[in-house]
Amino acid sequence: MSAVLPRALTIAGSDSGGGAGIQADLKTFTELDTFGMSVIVALTAQNTLGVHGVHEVPPEFVTAQLDAVAGDIGVDAAKTGMLASAALIDVVADGVARHGIARLVVDPVCASKHGDALVRPDAIDALKRRILPLAEVATPNLGEVAALTGVQVRGADDLPAAAEAVLALGPRWVLVKGGHLPDVVDAVDLLTDGSTTVEVRGERSAAAHTHGTGCTLAAAIAAHRALGLDVVDAVRAAKEYVTGAIRHGLALGGGIGPVDHGWRRHSP
Amino acid sequence: MSAVLPRALTIAGSDSGGGAGIQADLKTFTELDTFGMSVIVALTAQNTLGVHGVHEVPPEFVTAQLDAVAGDIGVDAAKTGMLASAALIDVVADGVARHGIARLVVDPVCASKHGDALVRPDAIDALKRRILPLAEVATPNLGEVAALTGVQVRGADDLPAAAEAVLALGPRWVLVKGGHLPDVVDAVDLLTDGSTTVEVRGERSAAAHTHGTGCTLAAAIAAHRALGLDVVDAVRAAKEYVTGAIRHGLALGGGIGPVDHGWRRHSP
Repeated sequence: MSAVLPRALTIAGSDSGGGAGIQADLKTFTELDTFGMSVIVALTAQNTLGVHGVHEVPPEFVTAQLDAVAGDIGVDAAKTGMLASAALIDVVADGVARHGIARLVVDPVCASKHGDALVRPDAIDALKRRILPLAEVATPNLGEVAALTGVQVRGADDLPAAAEAVLALGPRWVLVKGGHLPDVVDAVDLLTDGSTTVEVRGERSAAAHTHGTGCTLAAAIAAHRALGLDVVDAVRAAKEYVTGAIRHGLALGGGIGPVDHGWRRHSP
Repeated sequence: MSAVLPRALTIAGSDSGGGAGIQADLKTFTELDTFGMSVIVALTAQNTLGVHGVHEVPPEFVTAQLDAVAGDIGVDAAKTGMLASAALIDVVADGVARHGIARLVVDPVCASKHGDALVRPDAIDALKRRILPLAEVATPNLGEVAALTGVQVRGADDLPAAAEAVLALGPRWVLVKGGHLPDVVDAVDLLTDGSTTVEVRGERSAAAHTHGTGCTLAAAIAAHRALGLDVVDAVRAAKEYVTGAIRHGLALGGGIGPVDHGWRRHSP
């Protein structure tokens, strides 16, 4: 009675509060019927109020985790999240290349929803040089587009130029997340590989409890790639999943509560 | 449209391979409709073949994670797993007591399924002195009973004495897991608080892929306690869940594959 599931890996930070980071990724992988694994790059002491401490994992131990997982169990698709420092990014990039992980979703995390810096200054350059060229899909928000490319997006009309600037850094596809734009009714994201361009719309939500949104979207794209969907369909399916998770956000803690990864079962 | 879920916390080690440790616990919490959080005490580089490295988290960072979670989000029930060292056990015990976490399931992990030591020698004494007196339910297997009490269980007749010896260390309930006994047809576990005693039977399985069984059982007890079941019902429900997860174990990797946490959805 043994069976296998598609194998999905997160390479990211840990959020003790369970709403973001590898916790959000593992919950997403589980809900989307994939087998979740994790390479932890840094630990945060975190809750709905913010990030209260960061413990970086030694780079050689990140390599040990990645080799253990990829060398034995195997990886159908992976995502990266908070990678903390240039030294950590180097070993992650080396490992992804060494194990030939082709379906790689890169969420170029720079800061938490509260504005707490989650990576060192040297990490921005390392993300550009080492990780984005390995990405099948990069998923920057507007702040990350600005940090990575200098392009400031002020309205939906600026999204194509932003996407082009990110594509120039090497990912095969980019999903620019326009969710924070002030002038749009729906949450519009732009997905493009330079030839095919798709607008991905989700209901814009006034939800208060959105912690983990970015992690969950990237993890859901990776899960759907592990399940065999093509990039456009995987992004559409992931957007639908995260939109529901935001709509059913959980009023936990005193700050920004987490999205509900189990919303399809709790509130179908 | 905000809602809350019961809050379940794991305090344990991380298994990069996703089958055991906080990964198994978070998957279990998710499948059982609770909100999962984690305090990571140690990282392992691990796969289905064994444990290839351990990175212990600094004790003060374990405290930081526990305070962040318990002080903001709150904890309806918790479980402990691999606690690695006496110094780590001390800060976990201090934090559990400080935050008044009453529904605590203690899986007194000493070694992995492959026999790799997962705690330092000084941890056994610290488990006895600091953690077991805080436990609502302790879930030792026969090897852990021997390590904690010196009692050797050679057949089902020895289970009551083993349970009594563990109860003397302070937990309110003990579940002695007899699954490795050679002379029984079913997997019989003995649950007792010294006055009420219940045999908990699960179909004994020849399944090859059992990685994460102990973590999953303890996490499922904690989840059902968070959901409001009493101890006896929580243990029965958890045993049923883990028995199914073992029966549907996943043939992943070259060694002992993980149980399937999503078996009720995959193979109901």
